[in-house]
Amino acid sequence: MSTGNAKVAGIASKPRKPEVGGILPGLLEWLSRNGYSVVVDPETAPYAPGCEVLSRDQMGQRDLRFVIVLGGDGTLLSAGRAVAKAGIPLLGINLGSLGFLTEVILEDLYPALDAMERNGCEVHMRSMLECEVMRQGETVFRHDALNDIVLGKGTIARLNHCDVYIDQVFVSSYQADSLIVSTPTGSTAYSLAAGGPILMPEVEAFVITPVSAHSLTHRPLVVQDTSEIEIVAKTDDEAYLSIDGQIGIPALDGDIIRCRKSKDTVRLLHFKGSFFDVLRTKLKWGQR
Amino acid sequence: MSTGNAKVAGIASKPRKPEVGGILPGLLEWLSRNGYSVVVDPETAPYAPGCEVLSRDQMGQRDLRFVIVLGGDGTLLSAGRAVAKAGIPLLGINLGSLGFLTEVILEDLYPALDAMERNGCEVHMRSMLECEVMRQGETVFRHDALNDIVLGKGTIARLNHCDVYIDQVFVSSYQADSLIVSTPTGSTAYSLAAGGPILMPEVEAFVITPVSAHSLTHRPLVVQDTSEIEIVAKTDDEAYLSIDGQIGIPALDGDIIRCRKSKDTVRLLHFKGSFFDVLRTKLKWGQR
Amino acid sequence: MSTGNAKVAGIASKPRKPEVGGILPGLLEWLSRNGYSVVVDPETAPYAPGCEVLSRDQMGQRDLRFVIVLGGDGTLLSAGRAVAKAGIPLLGINLGSLGFLTEVILEDLYPALDAMERNGCEVHMRSMLECEVMRQGETVFRHDALNDIVLGKGTIARLNHCDVYIDQVFVSSYQADSLIVSTPTGSTAYSLAAGGPILMPEVEAFVITPVSAHSLTHRPLVVQDTSEIEIVAKTDDEAYLSIDGQIGIPALDGDIIRCRKSKDTVRLLHFKGSFFDVLRTKLKWGQR
Amino acid sequence: MSTGNAKVAGIASKPRKPEVGGILPGLLEWLSRNGYSVVVDPETAPYAPGCEVLSRDQMGQRDLRFVIVLGGDGTLLSAGRAVAKAGIPLLGINLGSLGFLTEVILEDLYPALDAMERNGCEVHMRSMLECEVMRQGETVFRHDALNDIVLGKGTIARLNHCDVYIDQVFVSSYQADSLIVSTPTGSTAYSLAAGGPILMPEVEAFVITPVSAHSLTHRPLVVQDTSEIEIVAKTDDEAYLSIDGQIGIPALDGDIIRCRKSKDTVRLLHFKGSFFDVLRTKLKWGQR
Repeated sequence: MSTGNAKVAGIASKPRKPEVGGILPGLLEWLSRNGYSVVVDPETAPYAPGCEVLSRDQMGQRDLRFVIVLGGDGTLLSAGRAVAKAGIPLLGINLGSLGFLTEVILEDLYPALDAMERNGCEVHMRSMLECEVMRQGETVFRHDALNDIVLGKGTIARLNHCDVYIDQVFVSSYQADSLIVSTPTGSTAYSLAAGGPILMPEVEAFVITPVSAHSLTHRPLVVQDTSEIEIVAKTDDEAYLSIDGQIGIPALDGDIIRCRKSKDTVRLLHFKGSFFDVLRTKLKWGQR
Repeated sequence: MSTGNAKVAGIASKPRKPEVGGILPGLLEWLSRNGYSVVVDPETAPYAPGCEVLSRDQMGQRDLRFVIVLGGDGTLLSAGRAVAKAGIPLLGINLGSLGFLTEVILEDLYPALDAMERNGCEVHMRSMLECEVMRQGETVFRHDALNDIVLGKGTIARLNHCDVYIDQVFVSSYQADSLIVSTPTGSTAYSLAAGGPILMPEVEAFVITPVSAHSLTHRPLVVQDTSEIEIVAKTDDEAYLSIDGQIGIPALDGDIIRCRKSKDTVRLLHFKGSFFDVLRTKLKWGQR
Repeated sequence: MSTGNAKVAGIASKPRKPEVGGILPGLLEWLSRNGYSVVVDPETAPYAPGCEVLSRDQMGQRDLRFVIVLGGDGTLLSAGRAVAKAGIPLLGINLGSLGFLTEVILEDLYPALDAMERNGCEVHMRSMLECEVMRQGETVFRHDALNDIVLGKGTIARLNHCDVYIDQVFVSSYQADSLIVSTPTGSTAYSLAAGGPILMPEVEAFVITPVSAHSLTHRPLVVQDTSEIEIVAKTDDEAYLSIDGQIGIPALDGDIIRCRKSKDTVRLLHFKGSFFDVLRTKLKWGQR
Repeated sequence: MSTGNAKVAGIASKPRKPEVGGILPGLLEWLSRNGYSVVVDPETAPYAPGCEVLSRDQMGQRDLRFVIVLGGDGTLLSAGRAVAKAGIPLLGINLGSLGFLTEVILEDLYPALDAMERNGCEVHMRSMLECEVMRQGETVFRHDALNDIVLGKGTIARLNHCDVYIDQVFVSSYQADSLIVSTPTGSTAYSLAAGGPILMPEVEAFVITPVSAHSLTHRPLVVQDTSEIEIVAKTDDEAYLSIDGQIGIPALDGDIIRCRKSKDTVRLLHFKGSFFDVLRTKLKWGQR
C-alpha cells in the first residue's frame, strides 16, 4: 500500500442504494477514529456531507490507502479498473447477496476494516485484459477489463462472424452470438453462463468462450496470459464491443480487437474464507 | 395437393444467387413439359422472363400445386410461412451445402421432380408456432414461426429478464441473453447452438431454450404443443422479438408474448433419405 | 381407483430410515379411522406389527386403493414399477428433501391423505419405458422403467459403442460412457445430469441422452413415444444395462435393447403445487 | 536430446496394425542410412527381424535419440509416459486419422524425419500429472499421466462420491459418474467429451472436470499446475482409478488420490502446422 504520510481512504458506492445512507455515518466515524481523511465518489456524496468528492478515475490519481466499495460486483468492476493503475487496494462490501468480488458481507464490515488496519488482510491480485481496437491502422479505443471483453452481435442480426488469432496464428472463424475473452476473475461471470469453465484467480490464463456458436464443436479455449489474442470483426452491419458489460463501442467490419494482459492489476483486500467458499455459496454446490 | 384443373407451380429463390440463372431454363422447360404454368417471386424474376411475378405472400393466395425453393433454409423458412395457410407443399433445393429443410441437393432436382410428379414424394408436416404480442391489452403483433420465436436483449444491456408461464402456471423468471421458443423444426437451428436438444419433427412439443442463462440450472424445457407459453418481458430499455431470425419488432416492458401451436402447417416434399441422414451429414456424427 | 368393497392401503418404506418408526403409529391410526386395512412391505414391517407383510410386487397383485411411499424418489421408482400394472395410485411422502416424485413433504402427510380421501388429489399419469433385451433371437430380459434405461460401460473400458435405430431406421453409432433412454419422468434425473433437457411429464416423448459422447455433436434427441428405439450393443468386453439405476444385467456384444412405451402407467397422487414449483425448489432457479 | 556418440532410435507400434509391416522396411533403411541403430518394442518386433527388442519402459532406460511411434494417440500416451523420465523425444506418426498427439500423417513420415535430422523440428513440452494413492497412511500406487487421472464409478452404482481439496483447502463434495483431472494435453480427450474446455498445451494449469455431476452447477475448474489436488474417495462399494484410460486400480473408501505436476515432461517432436490446425481438422470447426 501507499507509503505516504497522510492517510486518505476512498469510498465508492452503487447508485440508488439508500442502504449506503445507513452505513456512512458509522463508516466515516471509524475512518476518522483511525486517522483517515475521506474522499467519496459522486454516488456516495449525498450521504457524506463535507467529504471531498472525486470521480472514480480521479481517485486513481490520488494517493489513497484503499477504496471501500459499497455495492455489488458491478460497482467493484468500475472502481477496480479506475484505481488499478495506482495500485490502490479495494475492499468490497456487498450490500445484497454475496458477490464474487465483493466478498465481505455487511456484518463483517468493521471486523474486515479492523483486520485491514492491523495488516491482517491478504491482498489478492487480479489480472486484467487490455483491449485495443485497431481501425484502418489506427487505435480508436483502448480500455482495461477486469471481467471480460465481449464482441457481440447487434440487435437484429443473429450471427456475429469473426476470425481469431493467437500470437499471429490463426485459430478459427467463429459464427456466434458473441465471443467473450475473459480473465480468471470474469470466468465466474458471463463466460460461466455461456458454458465456460471456472478459472481459479491465480491461473495465468484467459478463456475465449463463444456464445451459441453455430459450430457445435467450438468450445471454450484457455490461453496462457502471455499471449496476444486478436479478433477480427467480420460484420455486414452492426456489432458491439463491450468492456465488463459496462463500457462499449460499436464495432465495424474489419476492426481488429487486440486483447492482451494489462500491465495493471486490481488488488482486492481479502478478509476471510476461500474462493471455494464463495463458489459453494453462490453456485449452491452440493445442495441438489 | 390441389384438386384444381390448372397446374400452376411457384418458384422462390434466394436473393443474389447467380446459380439460379443457370437452373431456371431447364427447370422452366421441365415444368412446361409437365404441363405447369409458372409464377415466380421477385428474386427469381430476372431469370424467368415472361413468368408472372408474385410476392411469396401472394403465392399463398393462389392455387399452386407446389412451390420450388431454390436456396437454403432461410429461403424455405420465408416461403414456407407464406404458403402454409394455403396448404401448398414446398420442394426445397439446396444451392449450397445440405440444409435441414432444403434437403434435396441440386443434382437430385430432376429425379425429385419426377418422383413428385409420380406422387412418389412423401409430404412431411412441420408444425409452426403462432406468436402474438399483447401490449396494454391489445394485440400489436401476430406472426407464425417455422423455426423459432426469440426474445433477445438489445445491444448494450447484458441481461434480458422475463417471466414464463405455461397454461397460466408460473414456470420461472429468466435472466438470459435470449429466450428461444422453438418448434421441432427449429430445434436443429438456433436452439441447438444454445444447448437445446434435437426434437424429431414428429414430436408434438416445443422447446424453451435460454441462451446464457444467469442461473446455471435453467435448462431447456420441452413442452407439449397443446400448451400456451406466455413470456412477460421485463426490461428497462430495449429488448427485441424475432421470428425465424427474419422478422422482428422491439419489445417493451410488460409485453406479453403468447406462443401457441399455429393452426397452419408447412408441408415439405421429401425425396429420399431420412431425418437422421441429414443429421449425420450436417453434424458429422461419428466422424471424430 | 379400485371399485372393490374392502378398503386396503399399502405402505412401502425406504430401508434403514428410523423416521418411519415415528410416522407409522399416526399413519396406521389415520388409515384405521378411515376404514382401511393395511398391508406393508418388508421394510415397513418392523414398524407395523400385526400388519400383513407383502413384497412390493405382491402388492401389485392385490386390490389396493393406494400405496403410501415413505422415502425418496428411489423408493417410489421401485414401488411405482411394482404396482403400475394393477393401476394402483401412489402417494409419495418425502422423508428428506423434496423429491421430483415424492413431492409431498412430511408435514403435509395428513392434509394430503385427507384431500385424497375426499377425492381432492389429482392423479398424474407417468409413462414408462418397456425394455426388452434380445440375444441371439431370444428375449433374455424384459422390464419396465419409470425413469430410464441405461446402457453403460464396464469398469475399465472407457468407451461404450452402440448403434441406435428408431422404428428400424438407423440413427447413428455412438461412442460414449453411457447411453440413456429416459421417460419425461426420468428427464429430471440422470439424463439431466448428463446434459439432457427437462421434459414436462405430459410430453409424449422419450429422450436419448449420451453421456460424454466422443463425438461432440451428439446431442440429446427427443423422440415421440410411439416409436421403438433399438440399441445394438457393440462391446469387446463388458457393458451393463440398468433400469432406473436399480436393476441391471450385463450386456453382451450384439445384444439388441428394444425400448418402447410400456402399456402400463404409474399413477401419482398429487396434493398441491405445480411441476414448476418442484423444479424451482430443487434446481434453485432464479436464486443465483 | 542425447549427447551420446552412438545414435540409437526406438520404434513403438500400435498392436495388431499390419500397416506397420509395410512401413518398417523403408523406415529401417532410412534410420540405417542416417547412422542409427534401432531398438523396437514387442509390438514392432515381428516386422523388424534382427532388431533388439525392448519393452517401452526399458527404452526409457536407454540413451535413445528419439522414439518413433507408429499408431495413434493411445500408443503415444503409453510410450510417452515410459520415456519421459529419460527426456527422450517422440515423433508420433498417425496410422489412421490425424491425432492430437500423433500429428504427423504417414505421407509426412520421411519429410518429418529429414527435418528432425536437420534439427528442424521444434520440441513441444507436455506436462504430466503425478498421481499417488494414499491408503491408511501408505502410498499404494503411484503413476504419471499424460492425459488424465479419472476416478470413476463401478459398474452398478450410479454415483461416485468424493471430496476435493486444492492445496489443503476444501473445494467441494462431488456426486458424479467420474471425476477427471486432466493435463492440457488431456483436455482434448475425455475431459472434452465430458464438457471441459480446451487448454492450449502451454497453459500452466490442470482442469478438474466432473462427468454427469448431480449438482448442475459443478462446472469444470481450471487450477494452476503448481497446486496439489487431493481427491478423497467416498464409496460404499466399488470405484475405479485409471491413468490415461490405460492403467487402473480399484479405489477404496477413504483413499486419498493426490495429483500434482510430475517432475517429468513428455517431449513431442513437432513437424509442421499449429495446434489449431489439428483442432480445426479434428473438430471440424467452422464446417457446419
